[in-house]
Amino acid sequence: MQSVFVAGAGMTRIGRRSEPLRELMAEAGRVALADAGVETPDAIVVATMNPEEFVGDGNFASHVATHLGYAGVPALRIETATSSGAAAVYAGFAQIAAGLRRTVLVVGGEKMTHLATPRVSEIIGRSIDPYERTYGATMPALAGLVTRALMTRQGVTLREISQVAVKNHAHATRNPFAHFQQAVTIEDVLESRIVADPLRLMHCCPISDGAAALVLTADRASVRIAGVGHGADTLAVRHRLELTSFAATRAAAREAFAMAGFGAERVDAAEVHDAFAPFELISLEDLGLVPPGKAGRATLDGDTSLDGRLPINPSGGLKARGHPLAATGVAQLVECVWQLRGRAGTRQVPDVARMLAHSIGGLATNNWVTLLERV
Amino acid sequence: MQSVFVAGAGMTRIGRRSEPLRELMAEAGRVALADAGVETPDAIVVATMNPEEFVGDGNFASHVATHLGYAGVPALRIETATSSGAAAVYAGFAQIAAGLRRTVLVVGGEKMTHLATPRVSEIIGRSIDPYERTYGATMPALAGLVTRALMTRQGVTLREISQVAVKNHAHATRNPFAHFQQAVTIEDVLESRIVADPLRLMHCCPISDGAAALVLTADRASVRIAGVGHGADTLAVRHRLELTSFAATRAAAREAFAMAGFGAERVDAAEVHDAFAPFELISLEDLGLVPPGKAGRATLDGDTSLDGRLPINPSGGLKARGHPLAATGVAQLVECVWQLRGRAGTRQVPDVARMLAHSIGGLATNNWVTLLERV
Repeated sequence: MQSVFVAGAGMTRIGRRSEPLRELMAEAGRVALADAGVETPDAIVVATMNPEEFVGDGNFASHVATHLGYAGVPALRIETATSSGAAAVYAGFAQIAAGLRRTVLVVGGEKMTHLATPRVSEIIGRSIDPYERTYGATMPALAGLVTRALMTRQGVTLREISQVAVKNHAHATRNPFAHFQQAVTIEDVLESRIVADPLRLMHCCPISDGAAALVLTADRASVRIAGVGHGADTLAVRHRLELTSFAATRAAAREAFAMAGFGAERVDAAEVHDAFAPFELISLEDLGLVPPGKAGRATLDGDTSLDGRLPINPSGGLKARGHPLAATGVAQLVECVWQLRGRAGTRQVPDVARMLAHSIGGLATNNWVTLLERV
Repeated sequence: MQSVFVAGAGMTRIGRRSEPLRELMAEAGRVALADAGVETPDAIVVATMNPEEFVGDGNFASHVATHLGYAGVPALRIETATSSGAAAVYAGFAQIAAGLRRTVLVVGGEKMTHLATPRVSEIIGRSIDPYERTYGATMPALAGLVTRALMTRQGVTLREISQVAVKNHAHATRNPFAHFQQAVTIEDVLESRIVADPLRLMHCCPISDGAAALVLTADRASVRIAGVGHGADTLAVRHRLELTSFAATRAAAREAFAMAGFGAERVDAAEVHDAFAPFELISLEDLGLVPPGKAGRATLDGDTSLDGRLPINPSGGLKARGHPLAATGVAQLVECVWQLRGRAGTRQVPDVARMLAHSIGGLATNNWVTLLERV
C-alpha cells in the first residue's frame, strides 16, 4: 500500500463567524494548499455534516470546489455525523493509498451560529435513533445519561470531569485559532447552569463555525499517516452493552494501531473528542492511553496537561478550540501536524513524534482514530 | 493496485414505495449480500442525497448499518447530489483497491414520493448555484435551457429527443424492477404537458423511491470494475463554455477509459443518465459512444434500442426504471452486472462483455463513468 503523507495544513479561526460556509472552507483550503506548495490538487474531499439545513445549500462538494477556483477538480462529500472530518481524511487516504490520486485536498467545515440554538440542537439531534428521539432524547440528554452512569458505576467524580474543561480552556489560551481563549476555574465549571443533569454548560462544547483542511500526498513529507481506524456501534444507545465505554472507539483504535504497527504506549500526545467533558475520560481509557479507571485521577494529577506526561487536547479540544462539527476531525489533525512539525507556538509539546486524533460521530455510533508520525 | 470485483447485486422495485428509506436500503443490501454469499461485509458505504430533508433522519450511514443488522460494521456516507450512488461505488472501490478492505457493501437509496412535488423540486434545486437560484432556476428550467440550445445550435429535433423516452419506456416493459412498465408512443411524449420549454413531462424522469446495492470484493468474481472516472464542472451553468456538451462527463470518460485500458468502441451496451431525455443524446456523444452530431439520428434509427447495434439503457433508464437519486448510480451498475452475467431476462443484450454506466450529479457538476467487464 502506498504511504500517505500530510504536505499541508490550515484552518480558520473557530468561533462565531459571519462569512458564508463556502468562504470559510475555501479559506482553510487555500491555506493548506499554500502550506503544501501545491497549485492544484488531483481531487477534493469535502466534509460537512448538514449544509442543506445549516446553510440551505446542497451539492456542497461542487459548491466548495467551484468557490476554491477548482471547478474542474473532482470533488465528493463524506458524512458520518459529527466525525465527518475524520471520515473525509480516510476517504482521501484511501484514494492515495490505492494509487488513484497523488494529491488530495481534504476540507471540513460547518456554519451554525447564525441559527437559533434550539434549531441547531434539533438538527444535530437527528443523529440519534428515531425511537429514542420520540422520548425526547437529545445529544446532551444522552450524554447526561452516560455521565450519570460513569459517576455511579465507575466512581468518577464531578471534579474529575470538570477538570477536563479547566485543562482544555487553559490549553486554548495559547491557541489563536480557538473559539474560547480564556481560562476557567473548576468553580466556574461547577457553578455554570445545568444543561442535562449532571452536565453543566461548561462541561459541553460550544456551537462553533469554522473550517480546517489538509493536503494529503503520495510524495514524502515531514508527517505520515501511520494508521486509520473506523469503528461502529448501534444507533440506539439502549441497545448497547455498556454505557461508560464506547465500542466504536475501541474498534477504531484496534484498527489504527494494527495498521501503524505500534501501540498506545508509543503515543506522545493526542487530540480527543471532548464534545462533553466526561467523553475525554471515557475515550482516554477506550483508546488505551490511560489504564481502565484511571482517567479521572490522571486528569486531576495533571498528567494530561500540556506539561504533563501525556498532553491531551493541546489545541483546547472541542470544549475550547470549538466544535464546528465536520471541521473538527480535520482540525484535530491540523493541530497534530503543527505539533509534529514543532510549530505549535507556546502550546508546543516537546519531543512529540507520534500523535493520535480521535473523533466521535453521533452518540459514538461512528468513531475514528487517526495516527500521525513525524518522518 | 488490487483488482476489484462485483460479487453481488440487488435492488428494490423502483416506484412509489410506502416503506421507510432505511427498509428499502436494507432490502437492497440484503439481496446483494445473499447474491454474493457474503455473511458480513468488512465495511459499508451508504449513498443518499439528502435523508435529513427527504425523510428527517441524519447520521444515515449508522442508521442503515444498524437497520441491516450490522451495527458493528464501519459505515460512511457519500454525497455528490444526484450521482451519489456512483460516488459511493468509487469510495468502496478505493478502499478495496488500497487493500484497506476485502469486501464492501455499497448501498444507495432515496425516498421522496411521500412529499409534495414542489417540495421535492425545491430540495433537489438546491444543487444549483445559489445566484442562479435567485433568478428562479430549477433543474427542469436549466435542462430546458440546455435542450433549447441543443435544438437551435446542433439541429437536434424534438422527435429525436422524444424517441429517447419511447425507447427507454419500451425497454422498461421488460424490467420488473422499473417504475413505469408500460410503453409510450412518440405522440404521447410530444403531447404531454410542458414542464420547461421545450421539455414536456414525458421527457423528464419521474420522482421515485427505491434502493440498490452492490457487494464489491478483492476476491475474483464474474464481473470486474475495469475503470472508474470522476469529472467536474462549474456549479454555475452560466460559467460554462458550452451548454450542449458536459465537460464533467468528458473528463470522467477519459479517466475511466484510461484506467480500463480500452476505449468507447469496446463498450457493448451502456446505462446513461437520462434524467431529461436530451441528456441521453448529449451524453452518448460526450462518452464517445456515438460520433459528434449523430446521437439523434442513431436513436431514431434504432441503433440504441435493445436490438440495436449499441443498446442504451436496457433497464429503462432514469426515464422509465425511475430515478431515486442516490440509488440510481448503483442501480445502473446492478443492471450492468445482471446483463454481464446473462441474467437480464427478456431484456438481455446478447454477447455483452463490457458495459458502461454514466451518472450526472447536479446539473452536470459532478459526473461519473464506471466500466464493468465480464471476466
